This record gives sequence, structure tokens and C-alpha cells, in this order.
Amino acid sequence: MAVRFDIISQGEELLAGQGVDTNAPWISSELQGVGLVPGRVTVVGDALAAIREVIEESAARAAVVVCTGGLGPTSDDLTRDAAAAAFGVPLEESAVGLAQIEARYRSRNRPMPPKNRVQALLPQGATLLENPLGTAPGFLVDTGCCLCFFLPGVPFEMKPMVQAHVLDRVRDRFGLAPRRTVILRTVNLAESVAAERMDGFERPGVVVGYRASFPEVQVKLHVEAGQDTAGLTTEAVARLGPPFVFGVDSGSLADVVVGSLRARGQTVFTAESCTAGRIAAELTATAGASDVFVGSAVVYADREKVRQCGVPEAVLAEHGAVSEATARALAEGARARSGADWVVAVTGVAGPGGGSPEKPVGTVHFAVAGPDGTTHRQVRLPYDRLRNLAASVAVALDLLRGRLLNPT
Amino acid sequence: MAVRFDIISQGEELLAGQGVDTNAPWISSELQGVGLVPGRVTVVGDALAAIREVIEESAARAAVVVCTGGLGPTSDDLTRDAAAAAFGVPLEESAVGLAQIEARYRSRNRPMPPKNRVQALLPQGATLLENPLGTAPGFLVDTGCCLCFFLPGVPFEMKPMVQAHVLDRVRDRFGLAPRRTVILRTVNLAESVAAERMDGFERPGVVVGYRASFPEVQVKLHVEAGQDTAGLTTEAVARLGPPFVFGVDSGSLADVVVGSLRARGQTVFTAESCTAGRIAAELTATAGASDVFVGSAVVYADREKVRQCGVPEAVLAEHGAVSEATARALAEGARARSGADWVVAVTGVAGPGGGSPEKPVGTVHFAVAGPDGTTHRQVRLPYDRLRNLAASVAVALDLLRGRLLNPT
Repeated sequence: MAVRFDIISQGEELLAGQGVDTNAPWISSELQGVGLVPGRVTVVGDALAAIREVIEESAARAAVVVCTGGLGPTSDDLTRDAAAAAFGVPLEESAVGLAQIEARYRSRNRPMPPKNRVQALLPQGATLLENPLGTAPGFLVDTGCCLCFFLPGVPFEMKPMVQAHVLDRVRDRFGLAPRRTVILRTVNLAESVAAERMDGFERPGVVVGYRASFPEVQVKLHVEAGQDTAGLTTEAVARLGPPFVFGVDSGSLADVVVGSLRARGQTVFTAESCTAGRIAAELTATAGASDVFVGSAVVYADREKVRQCGVPEAVLAEHGAVSEATARALAEGARARSGADWVVAVTGVAGPGGGSPEKPVGTVHFAVAGPDGTTHRQVRLPYDRLRNLAASVAVALDLLRGRLLNPT
Repeated sequence: MAVRFDIISQGEELLAGQGVDTNAPWISSELQGVGLVPGRVTVVGDALAAIREVIEESAARAAVVVCTGGLGPTSDDLTRDAAAAAFGVPLEESAVGLAQIEARYRSRNRPMPPKNRVQALLPQGATLLENPLGTAPGFLVDTGCCLCFFLPGVPFEMKPMVQAHVLDRVRDRFGLAPRRTVILRTVNLAESVAAERMDGFERPGVVVGYRASFPEVQVKLHVEAGQDTAGLTTEAVARLGPPFVFGVDSGSLADVVVGSLRARGQTVFTAESCTAGRIAAELTATAGASDVFVGSAVVYADREKVRQCGVPEAVLAEHGAVSEATARALAEGARARSGADWVVAVTGVAGPGGGSPEKPVGTVHFAVAGPDGTTHRQVRLPYDRLRNLAASVAVALDLLRGRLLNPT
């Protein structure tokens, strides 16, 4: 029997289209991870009656409701009032809640502003849910038929509260087996192809989910206790194709590359034409990249390829900027000049213009120069400009990752 | 009397959290632009009964409903069937719709696959809405109380259909005055500050909206016909502070900078330490940047600042990498070596580590070197690492934009 959940995202700015709702997808994925089935997501604004109506409807329809937003101290934060009205109970001040809010302010060396006292109000009979990272505590209303969780809308406060207060309670209430989620992170593999390769993998106690964030696709194995998680992981990697899986429960592709380089005590430099700094940006997205990343030459104009990386004019004249010869010359020239252990070089036609019959839009050449020589790869990407560039970053990093798998 | 609209986003992948719903915010903003008031956004999956239920509820509650998704040719595309069931009518094949789908395939030199014929089915009495960019036509069901639009979920097909089929019909039906929307694009201005400065600007026939996409905030003036649009725009720019408004109905900040450079026939090079290629990436996000952008030196390691941009070792030793002197040396050194007309240089502490009492996290120095000399700016950004970097890109581009306002 499927246990259904609804999500309510409260916030006039979401309803008005001033922002995108990222809470609901995250919560949906977490709840599916413990075995629940999604019912509906509703975005509602700041009108008390509208919030109340949505709470009533969701509590009547779903076994679990998670509502985020509207727990702040200002007059347009009405989720508390709406919940009390929906469940037909008054609001009452929670002494424990008030103490938590006061403690939060004390830890910041500030007195609690009087208006924040309203955040200690809960619908009568609700269970307080501590918010360790903010002033708005959450609460749980258990109607007997439905567990209704109310959480703040700020993602970095909300997420740890889902993990601390929601998942285990839901599992216990509905007798769901504890699960572990294994995340296989892949690049250069379309979600539809991943799904095809995983077809038939599900079995009792094993559910497969997907999350696409171009150009990465994550394949999630939700595995109940007692299953052979390691064996299932090996089987799934074999199905997906090992070269496509850059990490299991790992960080991003750039994190994996930075981690490998750090373990080896080696450095990297990038020589980028079409990607124009995007590989460098990706490598430095995580703090601490400075241990391994030294810099880049962005060589958009041909004369910069010559000036910064020493590509011979003759190579450009004979083979053109988008060619294996230029990619190799960029990588090797930049390596000689920068002194980095590894150089990743990219040159291609991202589009929409610049293509030719011999070098159509999407043609990209990569070279990786390292202590054991230079390798090359050519791809033909089918996307629009920005996606071609994002995919090129992934191909480049993955090529370097492959080289780093070999022993030093 | 407010005319309310609901939005329904249909798609199992949205409900399951495998993607973020960007259609609803866009549609919400467009409908508010013609004078409607948002009611509710609902995300629903692929179950026929669930889609039907949501359509019935929204059609009973709102005066306008826009539903996207589920109009494809496969067995999980059930919005057509759900709409017919919700309105209690059978599906009928539209001869015009079928001809449009066949014509779309002919234009691609392919025969229409038999399974696509189902896309010509509409609820009896519905009005066909042509989809010029895809095979799934949309349709409109007019219940007398509610205009219910059904459109494909692919954003680049859906958006022109909203503009062609939805906005004028809604305006006509509800006697809403035609409006023009002026978009003031700002950076380095928090949304709350923008809203404060625009407080009291609204008047009969003028509605103000906001859209934040960090670090940019757009202020939208929805102006009814007969109002002095130019005067209102001037007044709004004056309120916001002219330096913060980088464009009116313009492209992105990078587009504005690239456009100015192109108009002058000048070139730009970037010397980036902490931003590590992000300014270059932003400048090349639009095709055609190669007319003005020549390249970059990403100088993450101090020795790269010396090697690539000729920053004197003494400057680094005396002032440190994060300093006005280093920023100026980067800009001037890179300008001399690259021969570009303009160089933007950035060096700072993005965080979370690397701060010190004198140079706390968020300290960033910028220099712009050009034909008429070098200018410097220092900021202290309050965000996390990635937002500090995104804000630094905006400050850098905006500083260059300011320089380009002066006559050549």
C-alpha cells in the first residue's frame, strides 16, 4: 500500500514567479528515498485563507504533508495561523520554543527582538521541531491520519530539519524498512540511456531513482536493510558502464579530479578556447582547489593561442584552431610554460555560428598533457551553445579523471 | 475585482524532484504582466485521476488556468484524456491539428510516426492552439467561467504559445487594459532595497514587479496604455539610483558590455585570480563574443600572477595577492602583454577559508585598465563562496560598463 505525501511551498515570491521552488524537488527526493510516493506539490502565496485551504486539502488527501515557508516573524508569515485554523485549534506559546529562539539570539550576542516572540507560537497539541540554524522552529501536527510537518522555507535551515525530524518519524509511523541510498554519479550518459540500462534492476527492497542536472545524471539505489548493497552497487555500475560512473556517493566530477590530484601531490592548468574559463571555474567551485589548481590560459582569439601557449602559427594555418593538432599544441605548450603536472586543453565550435561542413557546430577537440604523455579526444555534441559548453567541461574533466586512474 | 489564475505543471519528473519547475514562474510573471493575480501553482504527476482532479479544482477556483505538460505522444502523456474527463466531453480528432502535425514532420523531411496522431485529439469543443515549434498542439477549453489553456511542457515551445495564444485572449475576456512591461535591470542592489526605493511608486495603471536572479534584480514596470512610459521609466531609474541600473529592456550585463565594446571596435581581456575564469565565461555566454573578447589569464597561484601578468614579486611581497597594488599590476601587466584595449582584473578572498583580520573573507579588489588609465575598486562581500564569486563577476563587469560610458 503506497504511502502518499504532499508538499506545500508557501511564499508569495514563489507564486509570483520571482523565484524558482527548489525546496519541493529536494524534499520529494528525500521522502521517496524512505519509500513514500509523491502525490502533489502546491505553491501558495501569503493569503491566510488560501494557505489554510491547501493545508486542509493536503491533510485530507495525503499520509504525510511537508509544508515549508511562512514561519518568519513578519505580518505576512501566516503559516502558523493557517495551520491552527486548518486543524481547528488555537495557537499557544511554546515555552521550550521561546527558550530556543532566545538562546539563538544570545549565541549571536543580540537580544531577541520582541516581534520574534510570535515564532514560539504553535497550534495547540503540535510537537515542536527544533531549528538549529535559525530562529523559526518548525512543528508537527499529527492528525492520526496524517503527519503534517511545518518547516522554515530557507533551504539551509530546512534541509537538516527534514533529516533530523521528518525521515525517521515517517519511517516509524508507516513501518517502512530503513533504507540506504547509494548515489552513482555519471556523465556523458543521457538519462534515458541510463534508465534503459537499469531497466529490470529493481527488485523487492531495491528502488531506482534518477536525478538529472545536465550534463550529470545521478542514479540512486534506495536499498532496504539486509540487501547486499555492495553487490548491488557493483552490478549497477556494470550495467551503466564503468567509464560513465565517475563516483559512488562522491562529490562532483571536479571534486573527484581535485581529490585525485591532491592525493598525488600534483597540479593542473587549463588551456581553454571555446570553454573560456568554464573548466577553471568548475575546478575552483570547491574551496581548497588552490592546492592543485594553478591557473589557466583562456585563448579565445587565435593570436592568444600563439602568445599564451606557444601554438605554432603553422599548426593553426595548416589544421585550423579546431583540430587535434591545435588541442595537443595548446596542452603541451601550456604544460611547458606553466610547469603544471597536468594540462587540459579544449578547442571547439560551441555554436550557434562558426560551424562548417568539415567542422560542424558541436565539434570539440580535447587534449590532456601529463607526465606520461598527451592523449586526445574528439566529440561531436548535439546541444545548444551553453549545453555544448557545459558538456565540454564534463568531457574535459572526465578525460583527466581517466588519466589519473593510472598509477603515477 | 481581481482576476485569479492557477497554473498546473504536469510531469512525473517534476513531482519526483528530478527537475525544477521553471515554467510556472515564467507563466506567472507573464500573466501578472497583463493584470491577473496568482492563485495557486500545482505540480502533478502522470496519474490520470490525479491530473483530472487538479484540472477540475483549478477550473472551479480560478478564472484562468494554464496547464503545461503531458501533450506528447506516449502512453504517459495523459493531459488530453484528463482534460476531456474533467470537462465531461469525449476526445475528437482535429483535422486542422492533424494537418499541422503532418506539416511539421514534412518540414523535417520525415513521415509522421503513427503514434503522433494521438496529438491531434482534443476535448470536444476545445479550440486548437497552434504550436509553431513542436508537434504537440495546445488547446483552450472555455467553460464560460474559466479559460483553461493546455500547452506543451517544453519551455521553448510553450513560451511563444503563451505570447501568441494566451495573453491577448485573457486581456480581451476580462476587459484588462493593454499593458507594456518595462524591465529595469540592476546589479549590486538587494531586492529588498530595490523594493524599498520603489515603495509608493505604484499608481492606477502602473504595477511594479520584481525578479531576482542573483546577483541581478529586475524591476518590472507594468504600464497601461495612455501612461507616460518614458517618464515613468526615468522616474524609476532615478529612484533606484542610476548607477545600479545597467540596462532598460536590455540583455544581460555581459551583453551590455559586449555591445558597448563592439560599438567602439575595442577588445577586452580578463586577469582573474579568485573568479578563476568566471568573467570570461560570462562574457562568452552569448555567441559572437569573439568580436571583442580575446582571452584571459587565470592566475590562481601567485607565481602565475608573476608569470602570466608580470606582477612584480615585490608587489606581492609587500602588499599581498589581495590588494589594490596587485589588482592594478594584474590589469596593467595583462594589458601590456595581451594588447587588448581593456583589461578587467580581480583578486580576492572568496571564502570560506583564506580570510584574515586585515583581509576578511569577501574582500575583493578590482582594477580596470584602459586607454585612459586604470581605476580600482574594493568591496567586502557578505555571501558564501559561490555567491561571492558571482557577485564579483557582476562588480567587475559593471566597473567596465561604467568606464565604457565615457566617450572614447
